[in-house]
Amino acid sequence: MRIVLDAMGGDHAPGIPVAGAVAAARAYELEIVLVGREEEVRAELSRHDTAGLSLPIVHAPDVIEMHDHAAMAVRRNKDSSIVRGVYLVRDGEAEAFVSAGHSGAVMAAATLVLGRLPGVERPALATAFPHPSGTFLLVDIGANTDCRPEYLLQFAYMGAVYAEGVFGLRNPRIALIANGEEESKGDRLVQQAHALLREAPGLHFVGNVEPKDMLLHNAAEVVVADGFVGNMVVKSTEAAAALFETLLREELSRSFWSKLGAGLFLRPAFRRVKARLDYREYGGALLLGLRGVTIIAHGRSDAYAIQNAVRVACESVSCGAVEAVAQALQAIPATPDQH
Amino acid sequence: MRIVLDAMGGDHAPGIPVAGAVAAARAYELEIVLVGREEEVRAELSRHDTAGLSLPIVHAPDVIEMHDHAAMAVRRNKDSSIVRGVYLVRDGEAEAFVSAGHSGAVMAAATLVLGRLPGVERPALATAFPHPSGTFLLVDIGANTDCRPEYLLQFAYMGAVYAEGVFGLRNPRIALIANGEEESKGDRLVQQAHALLREAPGLHFVGNVEPKDMLLHNAAEVVVADGFVGNMVVKSTEAAAALFETLLREELSRSFWSKLGAGLFLRPAFRRVKARLDYREYGGALLLGLRGVTIIAHGRSDAYAIQNAVRVACESVSCGAVEAVAQALQAIPATPDQH
Repeated sequence: MRIVLDAMGGDHAPGIPVAGAVAAARAYELEIVLVGREEEVRAELSRHDTAGLSLPIVHAPDVIEMHDHAAMAVRRNKDSSIVRGVYLVRDGEAEAFVSAGHSGAVMAAATLVLGRLPGVERPALATAFPHPSGTFLLVDIGANTDCRPEYLLQFAYMGAVYAEGVFGLRNPRIALIANGEEESKGDRLVQQAHALLREAPGLHFVGNVEPKDMLLHNAAEVVVADGFVGNMVVKSTEAAAALFETLLREELSRSFWSKLGAGLFLRPAFRRVKARLDYREYGGALLLGLRGVTIIAHGRSDAYAIQNAVRVACESVSCGAVEAVAQALQAIPATPDQH
Repeated sequence: MRIVLDAMGGDHAPGIPVAGAVAAARAYELEIVLVGREEEVRAELSRHDTAGLSLPIVHAPDVIEMHDHAAMAVRRNKDSSIVRGVYLVRDGEAEAFVSAGHSGAVMAAATLVLGRLPGVERPALATAFPHPSGTFLLVDIGANTDCRPEYLLQFAYMGAVYAEGVFGLRNPRIALIANGEEESKGDRLVQQAHALLREAPGLHFVGNVEPKDMLLHNAAEVVVADGFVGNMVVKSTEAAAALFETLLREELSRSFWSKLGAGLFLRPAFRRVKARLDYREYGGALLLGLRGVTIIAHGRSDAYAIQNAVRVACESVSCGAVEAVAQALQAIPATPDQH
């Protein structure tokens, strides 16, 4: 399999993406095409042992910066690593594109260049998320900030198919995130989406879930949200875990004994908890609904996170996520077009 | 000062509210009127030492249950503890109403009976929230699930005044919660509210904040959100902290040594962290924008949480929150009425 990686994407590019590519190429026996400024990428590659690995470089002189306007940058910077990388997938030169760069630009480029699958109203970002006994899929975590109820219905179908393919689940439970279980809860969008989901054929819809049901009680395998709300939930969860950790470290440093005890007994447990909650383990988010696999990794990804993002890309390709989503969407009864 | 407490509100009523009332009456030297089923409340009171305390009972035979429809229940159950309690405030028999009961019903009853202050479009729920070096105010955490930009502008003014009064802050920093700092971030509502807040006279608006800035980096003293998003942020934060704790306990119980270490050194630190994050410490949420003080406590409140909710009620009365909000709203330039 051949995966394209944006060598210029993320906080410490090209160093981090190149290190992640080397690790992934070795771990999964893949060819990884590094797209970016050839000289810089080559210099980074020379710092690694790449014997026996296939890591070709495709030159892209431009870089889309984090502060650029997404859609404008994509239209103007045809020579950027993001746009060139997506074209490689469209032209059949590679099976998937992975980037830790400007996520808005990656979404815009992938949507523009790869195109939506027939019937898809909006592509959506899906990511795996931990709960105490496994993971669930949250979709959308930020591709669409103003949704219509029909988009959420499509997110549910796309998420269900993806969870079946990648998690190997049969008939996964689908839920809507809301401020209470009753169908009267949620804002107008959630209420309308609830009504659509309840009647949707072929979906195992279990109703609304609150964040605690989703994070602690294994309430559903696929949780659907508007992209703004989904993004707020993800970011609040990350921030709260960090706050808990900060406060605990602060409290433990207050006395010699608790500092000693923490050093002796706590550190390994702490490390394991953080690993279980770490976004790096989950390897980035898949853009569902496009004619090709695009994975968006966290901008603060380290090499390990990049490696995992490449792994998610492979899994998505191997399980035929694109074809499965295409088939699933053809089965949705058409909704009246109110645009 | 005289505060009315809903003796029938919350998961373990009337036992818990009565215990909280006894504790609060003693701690703050208040008169606390217990509204509820007289016989049941009297039986609970008899289990406490109430010598020297003033804890009169006002009989209310009905109870609004958690599964009742809020507005309907308020209209039909005039003899419920919630409706009678709010009337006691309206009639000047007490200065504030506190309830851990059906929050929708409390909001509906308070809005209907006390009425909105002149110019208030929607009352909003505000609560104090911890960060590593203090607290900030989050508003709205669930009173309004479908907001207009002007509501968010009012939430900002009401929150600012309340933070000045209760936290004693001069010119508190106001922020909008969003998925990024740039003014182009957020959904349409957040973008429109951002434009209003930027131009709002007398507000120290610092722009958008992400959850991590709010929870970890002391980015603002008042954070404004639509009630659905605010509620999702609060619930995600609570759930993530609980998940972190669950996983840490699980990891610590894996070996004899870490179990021992945790028992010896960790327990006090753990307890202090939980106390700092505990909603019970913050004592419930104030309904801003009404002609009277109403405090909504968590449905799972214990006696300590009830005591703190009574404390927040006292502080809100003492600092003249109602009058201050009324004045602040008169200073907002009128927005065109588009209803």
